[in-house]
Amino acid sequence: MSWVKYEADSHFPLQNLPYGVFARHSNGIASVGVAIGDMILDLGAAARAKLFEQVVMDEHLLFNPIHCFAETGSLNNFMAAGRPVWAQARRLITDLLRADNPVIRDNEKLKSEVMVAQIDVRMLLPAVIGDYTDFYSSKNHAFNVGVMFRGADNALQPNWLWLPVGYHGRASSVVVSGTPITRPYGQFKKNPKDEAPVEGRCERMDFELEMAFFVGPGNELGDSIAVDQARDHIFGYVLMNDWSARDIQAWEYVPLGPFLGKNFGTTISAWVVTPDALDPFVVESEEKQNPEPLPYLNEANHHGYDIILETYLNNDNLSEPYLISTSNAKYLYWSFAQQLAHHTVGGCNARPGDLLGSGTISGPTPDSYGSMLEIAWKGEKPIQLPDGTQRKFLLDGDEVIIKGYCKGAGYNVGFGECRGKLLPSRK
Amino acid sequence: MSWVKYEADSHFPLQNLPYGVFARHSNGIASVGVAIGDMILDLGAAARAKLFEQVVMDEHLLFNPIHCFAETGSLNNFMAAGRPVWAQARRLITDLLRADNPVIRDNEKLKSEVMVAQIDVRMLLPAVIGDYTDFYSSKNHAFNVGVMFRGADNALQPNWLWLPVGYHGRASSVVVSGTPITRPYGQFKKNPKDEAPVEGRCERMDFELEMAFFVGPGNELGDSIAVDQARDHIFGYVLMNDWSARDIQAWEYVPLGPFLGKNFGTTISAWVVTPDALDPFVVESEEKQNPEPLPYLNEANHHGYDIILETYLNNDNLSEPYLISTSNAKYLYWSFAQQLAHHTVGGCNARPGDLLGSGTISGPTPDSYGSMLEIAWKGEKPIQLPDGTQRKFLLDGDEVIIKGYCKGAGYNVGFGECRGKLLPSRK
Ligand SMILES: [Ca+2]
Ligand SMILES: [Ca+2]
Ligand SMILES: [Mg+2]
Ligand SMILES: [Mg+2]
Ligand code: NI
Repeated sequence: MSWVKYEADSHFPLQNLPYGVFARHSNGIASVGVAIGDMILDLGAAARAKLFEQVVMDEHLLFNPIHCFAETGSLNNFMAAGRPVWAQARRLITDLLRADNPVIRDNEKLKSEVMVAQIDVRMLLPAVIGDYTDFYSSKNHAFNVGVMFRGADNALQPNWLWLPVGYHGRASSVVVSGTPITRPYGQFKKNPKDEAPVEGRCERMDFELEMAFFVGPGNELGDSIAVDQARDHIFGYVLMNDWSARDIQAWEYVPLGPFLGKNFGTTISAWVVTPDALDPFVVESEEKQNPEPLPYLNEANHHGYDIILETYLNNDNLSEPYLISTSNAKYLYWSFAQQLAHHTVGGCNARPGDLLGSGTISGPTPDSYGSMLEIAWKGEKPIQLPDGTQRKFLLDGDEVIIKGYCKGAGYNVGFGECRGKLLPSRK
Repeated sequence: MSWVKYEADSHFPLQNLPYGVFARHSNGIASVGVAIGDMILDLGAAARAKLFEQVVMDEHLLFNPIHCFAETGSLNNFMAAGRPVWAQARRLITDLLRADNPVIRDNEKLKSEVMVAQIDVRMLLPAVIGDYTDFYSSKNHAFNVGVMFRGADNALQPNWLWLPVGYHGRASSVVVSGTPITRPYGQFKKNPKDEAPVEGRCERMDFELEMAFFVGPGNELGDSIAVDQARDHIFGYVLMNDWSARDIQAWEYVPLGPFLGKNFGTTISAWVVTPDALDPFVVESEEKQNPEPLPYLNEANHHGYDIILETYLNNDNLSEPYLISTSNAKYLYWSFAQQLAHHTVGGCNARPGDLLGSGTISGPTPDSYGSMLEIAWKGEKPIQLPDGTQRKFLLDGDEVIIKGYCKGAGYNVGFGECRGKLLPSRK
């Protein structure tokens, strides 16, 4: 229990404590914080007030709170600090927020400095993202897309069951939840059978429901991260919408992969949920890996997370966001640890703040699919909306809202939301 | 003529003035400089000595030399400043180095502060690279690779003549010339007909001869850069070796493109040669574009550069680097301007310091191919080296050296070299 009050179904109880970066409306300065209920503990302000030195008392402080929290507008320094530091920081923050701790609770001046309401801030990207990679780790999604384009017999490519297929994405266009996304303009075939492509506004705009993780300590170029050590290199998780222009993607992607079909914008949720907070929600992965992964991908303890992932569609004609899919992180075939081990096995250097996306997370049934391409099955089964309209793909003005949460005993551990509204093309 | 003396075939005469970042052996501090002969004019030191204020005299100084050159260890600030600033800086630097200007020439104390010999420094990456993209813009290369994998009739994919095919690469592993590259370990099929893949050390290590450019001022997310404005957004050019693990690449790349086959290291030359220096070497592109590009890719003035590109192989058994290929930048089918226009047409935001690679530059004949895969034609035509050995792919200890230069009337404009030695896998 915390002295900060919140509802039982809050995404941000004392058991969660996700990290984020925010700017107060009052001064606009970026600061690192942790969410608790509808409030934020401003870690930069807390560091300046020497709260960590106070609370740690006898033991040794493993990290420099000023370096990690105060002299920076991003989480990169803290991400780089590593698991022992994260564990201590989590314990100290829990302590500061616990119901029986008077340090902040009973000091109105201090409280006014270090606590701020979430409605009084604008959330920013949690980290400077050096590189962003997107995987393709949901078997249902890979199979569905394969069926659509190659038929059921050749749906999965030969390599899919052997390695977590992935590609490098565009770091510059990763934006935080709430940032509008502009419909891309580009080159595509109006009709797949057309002789020549045209240039124009994308006509097949889609979303992709994903999760992603931020790298903590990285590895040197030429070294790698072993799959059973990967946990020490994973700082935390966010929700992600990998917006996708299907017509542009279909025309461009052979043979070098998705490019302009993806790089106009990728949205992530603002609060980074830690592995510590997700530990109670570890579950067996839905599907046993077969064939057995090669040694460098073979985990001593292969597992998934039971995270409920809801996707809503909203626009000005709807009275409230309309639920179009409910998926779950446990449907991922390749684990996050396997993704990081694979990414680095060849010597590629990961750096603190790198973002690795899971790929679209589709469940086994149509109501759990993670993209409009799958839900509306290439446009053959349009989504019926409560306002009487249909959707094969996204229209200008549509807003996609992804929510994620774990249901614990009497509490939730949530991600908040990953939200983005589609604006018309500027051309 | 400059008061700095250099040979007639120097890569770095007064007509070139490429920018780079270096650290003096004496203090290890990163500083921005410009190459002249075998020397460097330390622009950070020059800014602190107020040399730009002195030389500009009556007119307005368009930029802040301290911000661009002194308070930074990268070229990003200067890249962001834009073409009018670059033009003025080039004029001022030319002035300082001209034979008849005594300001540095006749001031021994000043000269000892602002001039440093290239042998007394270590070169660093010219910029913090936010995103790195690699294109595939040489028709000869795309055709050769296509013939090998799909036969001559289907060599070029349907999209290839319509757009500059490209993919997002890995920014973290871009390294400066001279940095050793470690042979990657990974997953691949020993033999394409094998049922299952294995993990092991790459057995088909290759290089790719490329050029790349650094972005200057970028564009906002949702906006784009028109093809005829692209020149104002291109800061300058480098040589690039896109090291490639062909066995890893062949197994992983369907359907999302190259990933671990490329991300273990990409080498660029240290000195960034400006469009101003290359202007005298503008030539008609070798091949007329047919079909006519769509409007957003259609340049008022489509052209290439006559840059001779030599690739050498060296190792401890050879008495000197052995020339294995001579190509030329004029063989590129898609121009750098078209690459940048395409990259941003959908709203993807480019940022100062982004690096865009051309793709392997192969000429029409085997002695002008830009990769070992092509020169040794999948291993069917091994390269004969002067030490009596053969190469189908690179061996540990092999060093690849790429040199690039333009031949002017009585002077060269060169890129120096892009050099990297292959070290054994660490596994
Ligand atoms: Ca995706
Ligand atoms: Ca390449
Ligand atoms: Mg995206
Ligand atoms: Mg590379
Ligand atoms: Ni400044």
